[in-house]
Amino acid sequence: MDTDFLEDFAAMSTHGATPGGGVEREAGTPEDHAVRAWFRGWLEEAGFAVRHDAISNQYGLVELVPGAPYVLVGSHLDSQPLAGRFDGAYGVLAAAHAAREVVRRVRAGELTAACNLAVVNWFNEEGSRFTPSMMGSSVLTGSLPLETALAATDRAGASVADAIATPGDALDLAVPPVAAYAEIHIEQGRGLEESGTTIGLVDRTWAASKYRIVVHGEQSHTGSTIMADRKDALFGAALLIVAARELTEELPEGLLHSSVSELELAPNSPVTIARRVEINLDLRSPDEAVLARANALLEERIAQVEQRARVRVERRLTHQWGLLSYQPEGVELARSAAAALGLTHAPTMTVAGHDSTNMKDVAPTVMLFVPSIQGISHNEGEATSDSDALAGVALMTEVTARLVAGELGADAAFVPGL
Amino acid sequence: MDTDFLEDFAAMSTHGATPGGGVEREAGTPEDHAVRAWFRGWLEEAGFAVRHDAISNQYGLVELVPGAPYVLVGSHLDSQPLAGRFDGAYGVLAAAHAAREVVRRVRAGELTAACNLAVVNWFNEEGSRFTPSMMGSSVLTGSLPLETALAATDRAGASVADAIATPGDALDLAVPPVAAYAEIHIEQGRGLEESGTTIGLVDRTWAASKYRIVVHGEQSHTGSTIMADRKDALFGAALLIVAARELTEELPEGLLHSSVSELELAPNSPVTIARRVEINLDLRSPDEAVLARANALLEERIAQVEQRARVRVERRLTHQWGLLSYQPEGVELARSAAAALGLTHAPTMTVAGHDSTNMKDVAPTVMLFVPSIQGISHNEGEATSDSDALAGVALMTEVTARLVAGELGADAAFVPGL
Repeated sequence: MDTDFLEDFAAMSTHGATPGGGVEREAGTPEDHAVRAWFRGWLEEAGFAVRHDAISNQYGLVELVPGAPYVLVGSHLDSQPLAGRFDGAYGVLAAAHAAREVVRRVRAGELTAACNLAVVNWFNEEGSRFTPSMMGSSVLTGSLPLETALAATDRAGASVADAIATPGDALDLAVPPVAAYAEIHIEQGRGLEESGTTIGLVDRTWAASKYRIVVHGEQSHTGSTIMADRKDALFGAALLIVAARELTEELPEGLLHSSVSELELAPNSPVTIARRVEINLDLRSPDEAVLARANALLEERIAQVEQRARVRVERRLTHQWGLLSYQPEGVELARSAAAALGLTHAPTMTVAGHDSTNMKDVAPTVMLFVPSIQGISHNEGEATSDSDALAGVALMTEVTARLVAGELGADAAFVPGL
Repeated sequence: MDTDFLEDFAAMSTHGATPGGGVEREAGTPEDHAVRAWFRGWLEEAGFAVRHDAISNQYGLVELVPGAPYVLVGSHLDSQPLAGRFDGAYGVLAAAHAAREVVRRVRAGELTAACNLAVVNWFNEEGSRFTPSMMGSSVLTGSLPLETALAATDRAGASVADAIATPGDALDLAVPPVAAYAEIHIEQGRGLEESGTTIGLVDRTWAASKYRIVVHGEQSHTGSTIMADRKDALFGAALLIVAARELTEELPEGLLHSSVSELELAPNSPVTIARRVEINLDLRSPDEAVLARANALLEERIAQVEQRARVRVERRLTHQWGLLSYQPEGVELARSAAAALGLTHAPTMTVAGHDSTNMKDVAPTVMLFVPSIQGISHNEGEATSDSDALAGVALMTEVTARLVAGELGADAAFVPGL
């Protein structure tokens, strides 16, 4: 058992630590830079060469088989505001400990490597400061142009290009070919805990539809404008927020998650009715038919809201995906490794997106979950028990060893353009 | 008829002009400073001595009776974001033109002055950038401490003290004793237009209750948190916004206005449920019993929202007033002046607050309305016909003349502390 993992995790969690026991390390902030610097030190001490690519994904590389492609293992160290210590960060450190142990085994002759090995800390998985989320892996895998990502700005107008400029950091890297990818993450739900399972073998993602919605009203005086004359964009937005929740009550229980969590209004004045409100709205389901029904109902509700609030609603579908599968051979490798270690395990779906959701599109990918206590996430109270955390590190080590040995292939499945 | 009024009004409206035909001159912005500089020039050319007090109320003074108290006439030049040209600014220029003509009459021996005369441009009536609204008149009349006002900050953290620092501006003024106050303003409603009346004689304010409400939820993941576990502060706020509107539908039509127009949420991230939302909520009625019923219903609704959204709602009453009367002798003076000029007129109530609402508490006050086309206000499309605007200037001249002659008294009704 990797007993110094917990000590390292505690040390890492001091970067951006909040009084409530969580962390706040939004992408590219001083706190993110601080944890990256700490992690670089850890990797260097463990013998990895530390580099970053053009979008600031951070890598610790070790060459085991000259010229061979790399197995990539990792997650992300950035966080939401007032977030927990585990989301992403647990997976990065678990991957690093796993990789260090695998390198030891190879060097000790206990394991024969077919691939090289790199730990990765993806840039801006969270997307709370810079949109979109999963930025680093989206750029690496080619679904997001580098220039678009670098030009993204936060609410204060700072760009990603500004935020990732770290003079003292290591050299840029031309990312080498990738043979396979593995990631471990907290579940962020209650499924594993409630079923008493230690390991979730992620085989699919929930389907999702994400909208950017603009409600167009008309500015007027909050006091003197008679109610019948009002075209209140905030009232329209409020009706939409309530409608999104009601969809989850109309459809079979548990089969639809809906949220509005971002809102901007203009002019945001105490005595002027809003002329414009912009919100995100997302719908997620483990059942594509339910999601299609929710999308259809949303369209009806929008028409009703337009009438009732006398506003115009502009809706843009920004992301949509169905039930996306991880490669069955990756799930099987993970199952076999968990069984070998005697860990309880079950197939599971992920509701949240992860960097592995991008990586599975370009390379054989293994995605693992450990339990979240009470399903709490994106919250300072987020937690995973020590024993589950350590079980995950042990499994990640076994999975990484099998990937380095070439169990999912030793060819270059993906040659990054970065 | 004061034919150059319309030309002056057009020139004044170029400061902070917006492409949509309105103005944007929030308090203490460069646009506000620009219109103040233009107005200073106008006043100086008309022979007034220009000064400002410690909260940046701007005055044009003329001494007609050495040692006598002053009749104050004016309104405000600051505006909401993307606002109309008339709100406040019309009243300031109408007062200035009226004052210039009254001075001419006194100097020409056509009128015997019992008081001195000053035009005032109140600082920050709108309150969109710095809270509270009616800041300048509240400080002068003593309901808001000067230090509190100077320390108020905008969303970017700039203070009133910073925003009003204008090195080139005239000297500070110890504001002289006040005998009476008069203000003319656009109605911002449809009443005068629909009844075909040129002048509203404001005799009372609507009653109002204004709340600052904080909805406390719990941060969690927008995707993976099951609906039953959510404590979504934005959902709670949306329910309150809808409830506020529904109150106006439950109570007799036209007797309740309700609004939520300001909203801040945290963390405002696309994938994290809001832990905290803060809104304003205001209720206004021309009937105190209706307002009391609305307040009681709101309390019930809040309890329901707390249950349904699993949030805690913290409510603070920030402003509350009943039906406040203007002095009947001021209303009668205005009626008599309107009748003398042959202008149609009717008593009316004001829904919105005005600087005159503060001034009537300390000195005899006359408040006049001219019609707003379609009642549009706090909007670039705000308008008053030229003929109504000029009728208002004529009436303001007549009212100012009577006040300077001492018709509401020539004693110091109020001695400002500024």
